[in-house]
Amino acid sequence: MRDLSENTSLLSLNTATVGDQWTLEECIEGCLRHGIGGIAPWRDKLLECGVGKASKLIKDSGLRVSSLCRGGFFTSDKNGNLDDNFRAVDEAAAITAESLVLVVGGLLPDSKDIDQARERVETSIQKLLEYARSAGVVLAIEPLHPMYAADRACVNTLGQAIDVCERVGEGIGIIVDVYHVWWDPNLKFEISRAGSKNLILGYHVCDWLVPTDDLLLDRGMMGDGIIALKTIRASVEAAGYDGPIEVEIFSKKNWWQRDPDEILKVCVERFQSVT
Amino acid sequence: MRDLSENTSLLSLNTATVGDQWTLEECIEGCLRHGIGGIAPWRDKLLECGVGKASKLIKDSGLRVSSLCRGGFFTSDKNGNLDDNFRAVDEAAAITAESLVLVVGGLLPDSKDIDQARERVETSIQKLLEYARSAGVVLAIEPLHPMYAADRACVNTLGQAIDVCERVGEGIGIIVDVYHVWWDPNLKFEISRAGSKNLILGYHVCDWLVPTDDLLLDRGMMGDGIIALKTIRASVEAAGYDGPIEVEIFSKKNWWQRDPDEILKVCVERFQSVT
Repeated sequence: MRDLSENTSLLSLNTATVGDQWTLEECIEGCLRHGIGGIAPWRDKLLECGVGKASKLIKDSGLRVSSLCRGGFFTSDKNGNLDDNFRAVDEAAAITAESLVLVVGGLLPDSKDIDQARERVETSIQKLLEYARSAGVVLAIEPLHPMYAADRACVNTLGQAIDVCERVGEGIGIIVDVYHVWWDPNLKFEISRAGSKNLILGYHVCDWLVPTDDLLLDRGMMGDGIIALKTIRASVEAAGYDGPIEVEIFSKKNWWQRDPDEILKVCVERFQSVT
Repeated sequence: MRDLSENTSLLSLNTATVGDQWTLEECIEGCLRHGIGGIAPWRDKLLECGVGKASKLIKDSGLRVSSLCRGGFFTSDKNGNLDDNFRAVDEAAAITAESLVLVVGGLLPDSKDIDQARERVETSIQKLLEYARSAGVVLAIEPLHPMYAADRACVNTLGQAIDVCERVGEGIGIIVDVYHVWWDPNLKFEISRAGSKNLILGYHVCDWLVPTDDLLLDRGMMGDGIIALKTIRASVEAAGYDGPIEVEIFSKKNWWQRDPDEILKVCVERFQSVT
């Protein structure tokens, strides 16, 4: 298991962690100021900056782009939301993101058929994957917690995500985000299985708060919740993952109300101590 | 698949559905008034009434007791919360409940080790099962949605619950509650597996609302959410389940604010039409 106590180059900032407070350029400057080695921009911040300018800023900064966040939502229209996903692939290529994260989408409009949603997701991924391969972009399915199955992602376990990867072929893998998978009775097995197939493309951290007062926007800073972070990281690294560790915290009432420099300072401290 | 359109005798009222508005006696009277065939008391209402009196009231009413809600929380103290669970078994015996529902509990106090919590749950169930067998009470593990893994139940899938049942032996089964399991990619398989071992002891319904604004107290009335109720019931009945269908809705801001007679009226309508 890697020693993070002196090493912040493996830490990557998912820009959602500071909420809407900073532009992409400010996020990049913040990462450099705090010794954070990587960044994972959300597409809204990327587009606000302009992809060309963002690409240059990131390249000049020397930051590693752990992922572009995000494509997916394949169930939102009849065409699998592919036009937007093609653009996301182009953006990922432009900033040399290590992967394009896919939040696959929930149920189809006016439908209660989750099997059908899952089929639509898989056929859409197959189509997107052809495009992504030709663009040199790797896709990464992020299974989301089952509480998001209806409206955000109908891929809800690592096992399910790995099975999709196996069926659609090369050029795609999975993201292990502790918030979504910590509860899974098959967690260790599935992490090991993903590693044995070289499918782990990213590792995301935050924490699960008790109580959690909002399904989406009440994620905790590492160490403030109940997730056995070091235990899960040990599994992920034992499975061969040696990439960056991305911090992604949605916290409307707490962290997003704080000075972004304070957020980054605490991210670094908790990364070194409890992650 | 059973035709519910003319049949309300299979409907059972979990008393939490009316919130705190009615006593157990009023719940019983309400069920009789609305042609509801069964009841599932929560223990607080049972104890408020007095177990002896409750037992007589229920017997005289002719209502079927689909379950007693609930035992469990085995992780709340060092002794597996067994004293309270023994009392729950006694209460279930007194009212001739078809099963004692177990909500097994989340993490141990000050612990992040979910494996340890799951071990504690299983060893506690083994102990409780001996007592329950001698009292003639059947135990029913209710796997809870993964969003409750930390603080309510670390048994989060049907597969996991079935595995526990298989290991601890006779006298125990599982509850299929659509709210907790609708998202599970293995749902059909696990329902079928449970049925093949005669483990399905209860079927609970409500609905998953989009959006859901509270992790615990924002459950929907059948038909108001996105759960494919008839599809899941078809699986459960194809697996051999022929018992009552229990309605359990926690709804602080909506249903609990309404007249209980209105709640029961709508429960009956939705039971006959969309369940």
